[in-house]
Amino acid sequence: MSTSTSTDLEQLARLSQQIRRWIIRCTSQAGSGHPTSSLSAVELMTDLMFGGHFRYRIEQPDDPANDRVIFSKGHASPLLYSLWTAAGVIEPDALMRYREFGSPLEGHPTSRFRMTEAATGSLGQGLSIGFGMALAARYIDRSPSRTFVLLGDSEMAEGSQWEAIQLAAHYKLDNLVGILDVNRLGQRGETMYGHDLNAYRDRIEAFGWRCILVDDGHDHQQVMQAWDEVESVSENNGQPIMVIARTIKGKGVASLEDEPGHHGKPVDEDEFESILADLGEPDESIRGQFSDPIVYQANPRKSEEAGLTDYEIGDEVATRDAYGNALCRLARKYPRLVALDGEVCNSTRSKRFRDDLPDRFFEMFIAEQNMVGAAVGLAVRGELPFVSTFAAFLSRAFDQIRMAPYSNANVKFVGSHCGVSIGQDGPSQMGLEDIAMFRTIQDGVVMYPCDAVSTEAIVDLIADHQGIAYLRTTRGKTPVIYANDESFSIGGSKTLKESESDDATLIAAGITVHEAMAAAKELDAKGISIRVIDLYSIKPLDHATVRRAADQTKVIFTVEDHFPEGGIGEAVLTSLSDHPTPVNSLAVRKRPISGSPDKLLDLEGISAGSIVAAVSRWLEA
Amino acid sequence: MSTSTSTDLEQLARLSQQIRRWIIRCTSQAGSGHPTSSLSAVELMTDLMFGGHFRYRIEQPDDPANDRVIFSKGHASPLLYSLWTAAGVIEPDALMRYREFGSPLEGHPTSRFRMTEAATGSLGQGLSIGFGMALAARYIDRSPSRTFVLLGDSEMAEGSQWEAIQLAAHYKLDNLVGILDVNRLGQRGETMYGHDLNAYRDRIEAFGWRCILVDDGHDHQQVMQAWDEVESVSENNGQPIMVIARTIKGKGVASLEDEPGHHGKPVDEDEFESILADLGEPDESIRGQFSDPIVYQANPRKSEEAGLTDYEIGDEVATRDAYGNALCRLARKYPRLVALDGEVCNSTRSKRFRDDLPDRFFEMFIAEQNMVGAAVGLAVRGELPFVSTFAAFLSRAFDQIRMAPYSNANVKFVGSHCGVSIGQDGPSQMGLEDIAMFRTIQDGVVMYPCDAVSTEAIVDLIADHQGIAYLRTTRGKTPVIYANDESFSIGGSKTLKESESDDATLIAAGITVHEAMAAAKELDAKGISIRVIDLYSIKPLDHATVRRAADQTKVIFTVEDHFPEGGIGEAVLTSLSDHPTPVNSLAVRKRPISGSPDKLLDLEGISAGSIVAAVSRWLEA
Repeated sequence: MSTSTSTDLEQLARLSQQIRRWIIRCTSQAGSGHPTSSLSAVELMTDLMFGGHFRYRIEQPDDPANDRVIFSKGHASPLLYSLWTAAGVIEPDALMRYREFGSPLEGHPTSRFRMTEAATGSLGQGLSIGFGMALAARYIDRSPSRTFVLLGDSEMAEGSQWEAIQLAAHYKLDNLVGILDVNRLGQRGETMYGHDLNAYRDRIEAFGWRCILVDDGHDHQQVMQAWDEVESVSENNGQPIMVIARTIKGKGVASLEDEPGHHGKPVDEDEFESILADLGEPDESIRGQFSDPIVYQANPRKSEEAGLTDYEIGDEVATRDAYGNALCRLARKYPRLVALDGEVCNSTRSKRFRDDLPDRFFEMFIAEQNMVGAAVGLAVRGELPFVSTFAAFLSRAFDQIRMAPYSNANVKFVGSHCGVSIGQDGPSQMGLEDIAMFRTIQDGVVMYPCDAVSTEAIVDLIADHQGIAYLRTTRGKTPVIYANDESFSIGGSKTLKESESDDATLIAAGITVHEAMAAAKELDAKGISIRVIDLYSIKPLDHATVRRAADQTKVIFTVEDHFPEGGIGEAVLTSLSDHPTPVNSLAVRKRPISGSPDKLLDLEGISAGSIVAAVSRWLEA
Repeated sequence: MSTSTSTDLEQLARLSQQIRRWIIRCTSQAGSGHPTSSLSAVELMTDLMFGGHFRYRIEQPDDPANDRVIFSKGHASPLLYSLWTAAGVIEPDALMRYREFGSPLEGHPTSRFRMTEAATGSLGQGLSIGFGMALAARYIDRSPSRTFVLLGDSEMAEGSQWEAIQLAAHYKLDNLVGILDVNRLGQRGETMYGHDLNAYRDRIEAFGWRCILVDDGHDHQQVMQAWDEVESVSENNGQPIMVIARTIKGKGVASLEDEPGHHGKPVDEDEFESILADLGEPDESIRGQFSDPIVYQANPRKSEEAGLTDYEIGDEVATRDAYGNALCRLARKYPRLVALDGEVCNSTRSKRFRDDLPDRFFEMFIAEQNMVGAAVGLAVRGELPFVSTFAAFLSRAFDQIRMAPYSNANVKFVGSHCGVSIGQDGPSQMGLEDIAMFRTIQDGVVMYPCDAVSTEAIVDLIADHQGIAYLRTTRGKTPVIYANDESFSIGGSKTLKESESDDATLIAAGITVHEAMAAAKELDAKGISIRVIDLYSIKPLDHATVRRAADQTKVIFTVEDHFPEGGIGEAVLTSLSDHPTPVNSLAVRKRPISGSPDKLLDLEGISAGSIVAAVSRWLEA
């Protein structure tokens, strides 16, 4: 794009002022919101999107050639929506329903507003999501799309931003552009670096980004010059770009400019009219234009049927190995499947996929927050990301995981090394709260297979499933118990052993299924008949089978290699909340420590021997 | 300390070799562990601890004047334990029980080994903990203690490290020294920067730390020179220090040196003897000495009784305000109480404490992972940290929170803005999974008071309690329902309404207590008698009262402003797992959105009206 004329700049100035009016009016109408945080970024974003540099076809929002914009500072949603109003996508009347119950224009952007690329509002997450989107554009779509991420200065304290900054430089994503709105003021006072642009530049440049400084982020000439420079440098030099602009929080409202104490509040009611008057004549019909995307030919990706891995019943295979096998086997059935891992692919076994299809594997290093954010970015761009690390380390990214549903992000999580059964490495490496964590994801799927065959089937199921899914895998080898062509379902279960006169039911998943089967055998020999259910689908849960067991047996014992809270026991209790049959939960209740897997299963009362003792004791009481 | 003589260096070399033998022998004995990661840091740590620079009195481990060492790369535990063996604290025989079931020498360091400052093993957490300990030393104890943190290069990808780096510079902690063991190799291959020391220096210096480079981290002369330099520069210049050393993973074992593929494995059994032979003659009795701590006079801190805040029944007060009041009121009763907040103190109301006692308040900016790590560091140094932010944002630090119990860290967490009842800001700001998260903490306390009086009492209770506690506070005002001198207890509850012929029980906490009381009043008018229990202590839970309600009423309804999984409903179900009375859980099941609090409580079926409808429907069915 050529340098702007003064007519262009005047038009951008008029548009900016109207956007300011919209920001102030919609937040005042709502009685809540963050106008001052929105006002500081008006020129930056107006000039980006309507100054000839932002390539987007409104009629085809999903076109891989479109540029993308993410508001990492999600509380500046009034600005985001005002920009889309200026683009003609939102009617001004609808904008005035900002934050109202039922309006898609929520307090922080979510997928309910169709132009939101990804939900934000929990700070420090947008750059990772943008990194993921840029990764998709550069390495998968091979499209000319650029991803622009509006960042607040306070949120640069978040470590996740520095993960994104490292990884973006490592992946040479010169199609990723951050816009750092340095308005000096956080929520409760000044940030660590105030208006010192060089403080940001020194740090970000040190990580290999190219920085472009804008002394006055409200001067259209300077801002457009920055956008011109971004355009000219971002060709193939491998450096992500950070535009760092000195701005004024509350710019445009004299009484608020650069004043602390006004974060997250609409303007004073009694100043409302005079503030609008200061912004000049309203122009509700003013609009701006995007540029056209560069012509781009997508590579069609074909899907091919996948065969089955051939396991023999009795083979000793770790379910984490079956995961690695499944990824490779299903790669051609799901041509958009990509794998991300956090420096542990040899442990999670995603390494098999990495070695097989290196172009579809992305090493994310020891930076789980960014890995999850990147997966969200990849997912909203239509990829099918499988994210793996130790189950315990997925807790590092719980904030990113809990936000993912609000982007409708189709991400699959795989946590290995679950439970005390990992043994001697000890509790820092043990996933003991991961089932609880993932169960809290609304409509999330939580699967915990016990053998290689069910694992592979479940990888296929969750790849096919639309929505967030979690697969828990085991470090140690376990015997294959299912035939290769056995079928499984989300919400299903397998009753491995039952009779018409079962005394008790054992409900288990993963490693404890094998303990339960061994216990059942031993109890059988003592004349106690045990039903055993493999609850491989923890959420959703097979209520009918569980209820039938509650109807037909005297007591249910759940057995899990996980803390009691929020796990399989509580899931079963919830399912039977109106049923009188008692449910006893065997779970990890003692402080977990280093030791051999067998000793730890015994310590925690979830080994076959412990199950036998617990069930016998209950039935004899 | 003066520059080392060649005799000193020879002694350090001999000690280093014996430490190498211990590392190799204990991991081979255990059959697991990370010898190569331990071997790369031998000279660095041996020379630090036994070269005259580490001031520590073994007989008084808790002396505030002691220097501190933390292994952020916790998998190098063989080195940590070998160093303490060299110090004479661990017997070599005991070292050989590394990782055995029952041994305090766990796979990654935990509090079960008495010299562990804080548990590590989940990477990227040690620098935050060290930051907290340095904060305690500099700003609270005002002691000469220095905190040394051994860091791996791969874990520098973790954003939490960059949070710690920012905050340490901001707080001018020149008593914090990082030791960056740049051995080039992560778990599955090379790190992003390999052996490029300048890559680390450029980045860390940009954040204001002073960097000291060591070209050969196995050359005692160079390493001791670095420690001499640390000693000379660390006086009062306000810059934290990073020693960045080029090292070799597996140093000392020729076949493993700098070779990928050997992470986390003991040496080959058939090479064991020759490897030991290459390390020279064993010297099981060689020991090293620490230096004496600088004489230091602790300021005694006296505790004074606290009064009560005076609330009137019926006053409308947000429990978050009561939290702020309680902190101030209890400050003199708990002289070690300090408050940390993540840039939202005006929202969490810890601002009152900040304004009252600024020396005991530490702004942690928008960096929750580091905030929690810092709190662990403060706690293990004997402070009483209260950590506050929005409940939703505590999920950002779940990994740090789940690790805290293994340090026996006495940290109190306070999450504000819980539930959909925060209203228009929308789901990114709503804590809806925090009860589930904190319930998974073994022996953790989870409290959720409904009014100002109970909130203040509970702050006192959890301050007095030894162990991790979580307090959930509400954004909106709620009426005071308790008298100022009402007593509460961890594990207690309040039955607000009961009769001998109650039809149903409502169990609620926090904001839903008020909804439940209003519902009960309405149901009363319809001739339905309702018992109402304020379950302010969710964990531990008042089993006796809950069971009595299950015995005496037909049905229990739990009502919570939280997702169903892992929350109050499941806690009550677990309590009544052997009881036939049905339990129905009212919780947040619909996708949360922006809107007024009232509309959202209705949407989610947890408002008074919804409760009335649900209970009536059930009883009429």
